[in-house]
Amino acid sequence: MIQDKIIPAEEVDPVHYDRGIFFGDGVYEVLRSYNGKIFALEEHLQRFAKNLSAIGIGGVNIEEVRSRALRAFEAAKISNAKIYFHVTRGSAMRNHVWDGTLRPNFFLTVTELGEDSEEKDKGIAVSTHPDWRWKRCDIKSLNLLANVLARADAAKKGCQEAILVDETGLITEGAGSSFFAIFGKELQTAPLTANILPSITREYVIKAGKNIGMAVKQKSLTPGEAGSADELFIAVTTKDIVGVVKLDDKNIGDGRPGKYTRLLAEEFRLFTA
Amino acid sequence: MIQDKIIPAEEVDPVHYDRGIFFGDGVYEVLRSYNGKIFALEEHLQRFAKNLSAIGIGGVNIEEVRSRALRAFEAAKISNAKIYFHVTRGSAMRNHVWDGTLRPNFFLTVTELGEDSEEKDKGIAVSTHPDWRWKRCDIKSLNLLANVLARADAAKKGCQEAILVDETGLITEGAGSSFFAIFGKELQTAPLTANILPSITREYVIKAGKNIGMAVKQKSLTPGEAGSADELFIAVTTKDIVGVVKLDDKNIGDGRPGKYTRLLAEEFRLFTA
Repeated sequence: MIQDKIIPAEEVDPVHYDRGIFFGDGVYEVLRSYNGKIFALEEHLQRFAKNLSAIGIGGVNIEEVRSRALRAFEAAKISNAKIYFHVTRGSAMRNHVWDGTLRPNFFLTVTELGEDSEEKDKGIAVSTHPDWRWKRCDIKSLNLLANVLARADAAKKGCQEAILVDETGLITEGAGSSFFAIFGKELQTAPLTANILPSITREYVIKAGKNIGMAVKQKSLTPGEAGSADELFIAVTTKDIVGVVKLDDKNIGDGRPGKYTRLLAEEFRLFTA
Repeated sequence: MIQDKIIPAEEVDPVHYDRGIFFGDGVYEVLRSYNGKIFALEEHLQRFAKNLSAIGIGGVNIEEVRSRALRAFEAAKISNAKIYFHVTRGSAMRNHVWDGTLRPNFFLTVTELGEDSEEKDKGIAVSTHPDWRWKRCDIKSLNLLANVLARADAAKKGCQEAILVDETGLITEGAGSSFFAIFGKELQTAPLTANILPSITREYVIKAGKNIGMAVKQKSLTPGEAGSADELFIAVTTKDIVGVVKLDDKNIGDGRPGKYTRLLAEEFRLFTA
C-alpha cells in the first residue's frame, strides 16, 4: 500500500523496497565543483570505497562511480555544483539479513550551489545539541536522523548549524560539518575517532593552517572552552570555511569572522583554483 | 542519475527524493495477525503516534493509519500475516532542514508469516555484538544500519539474532527483539531507557510472567550473567517467544528451550486467541 492505495506487490516499483529506506543501509558522498572543476574527487571516491567496504556492500566499481559522477556533472553544465550520490545495498523484501544476489542501487544529483558570500562575510550562529548519533560516525551512512533532529533544533533557535556534544560533555563535530576553534595562532579540532567523520575538508583546513604557520592541536573541546576561543568556524565541502560568531548565547570575538578564519579561507581557496 | 542513466530532475519519481532514504527520516511499526486477527493493534498505533511526534512529523491522522492497515490486511486475505508500515517526513530535495509544506509518505506491506515451529521447538543460537545504535533507541526509527550490521554478524556466526552490548558491558536488547533471562522463577530484562525500544511484546511477556506467578526484575545483565541463566529467550512481534539455547559459545540449560520459556509461550498464546 502506497499512501492510501492498495497495489499488488508485483506492481510496486522496487525503489519502494530499497534497503536505503527500510534501514538506511547505504553510504553517500557530497562533492562540489569550483568554476567547473570538481574539488578533491579522488579523496571522496577513496572514502566512499572505504565506507562501502565498512558496511559490506560489494559489487560497486569505483571507476564506474567516478565516470558516472563526471558524466552527470558534465551533462548538468553547472559551474558551481553540488554533487550528491549514494549507494544502497539494493531492493528486496524487508529483512535485516540480505542475500548475495542483491544488486546495489546508485542515485546521484547535481544541483547548483547557492551564493553564500553573505554567510561567509557575516559569520553564522550555532547552537549545541546532544550527539545522538550512532557509534560509527566514521562511516558516512544514510542513518542521519540524529543529524536532522539536531539541525532542526538549531534552525528553531535561529542558528545555521548544530554543534554536537557527546555524553562526556565534549564537542564531536557539527551535524553536517567539522568544527574548529582558534586560540592565538593555534588551530584546534577533535581528533579522528569512531565518533568523527573523517572529513576531507577538515584535512584541507589543517593543511591550510600549517601553510600559514598555525600550530594544529587535535583535541576535543567542551562548549565552555569553545566559547572562550578567539575564533570559531565550521568546515564543510559545500561551503568550505564559514566563521562562527555565536555559540549558544556566547558571542565569539568581535561578532565578525576572525582574522585567522579569513586567512584560512583565503589559503583554502588556493587548493580549489 | 539513477544507476547509470541521466534523468532530468523533473522526470524523477519523488520516491527517489524520499527523506526516508536520504536520512532515515521516518518511523515504522510491525504488526502481526494470529488466525485472521491483528494482535495489539491499538498499542502499536499509540506507539506509532508517539514516535511520529518524537521526531516532529505532523499531519498524520492515526485513525487513517488504522483504517489503512485494516483495509490492506483484509484485502490481502492472509490469516497469519506480518504487517509492516512506515511514515517518512516526505519527499524533497535533500536538505537536513525541512519546510512546512512537506507531505508525509506512507508505505505498508502485508506478507505471510513463515512457519516457525521448528525454531520455537529447538530454540535458537544468538551472538553478542557491540551496540552501535544511536542514543534514542526508544524511537522506532528507520535508522537501522547498526541493527543490520549486528544481525549480519550473527548470521555469519550461524546465529539467528544478535544480542547488543553497550559500552559499559551491559546487554540492551536484541537487534530486532527484546531479550529475557530466567533465574529460578524470576524473569529478568533490561529496564526501559533511551537505549531500549518500548516493545509491546515485552509488556505482554511481563504480563504472562506475572500470570504464571513469576517475579519480574527489570535490570540489565552482562553477557556473563546471561550465560549463567537457567533459561534465555527473545521476544518479538513476529515470533512472540523463542527460546535461546546458546549465547556465543555458552550452552544454556539442557540445550532445549526451558520449562518457563515454554510456560510463558503458552500463556502468551492466550492473549492472541
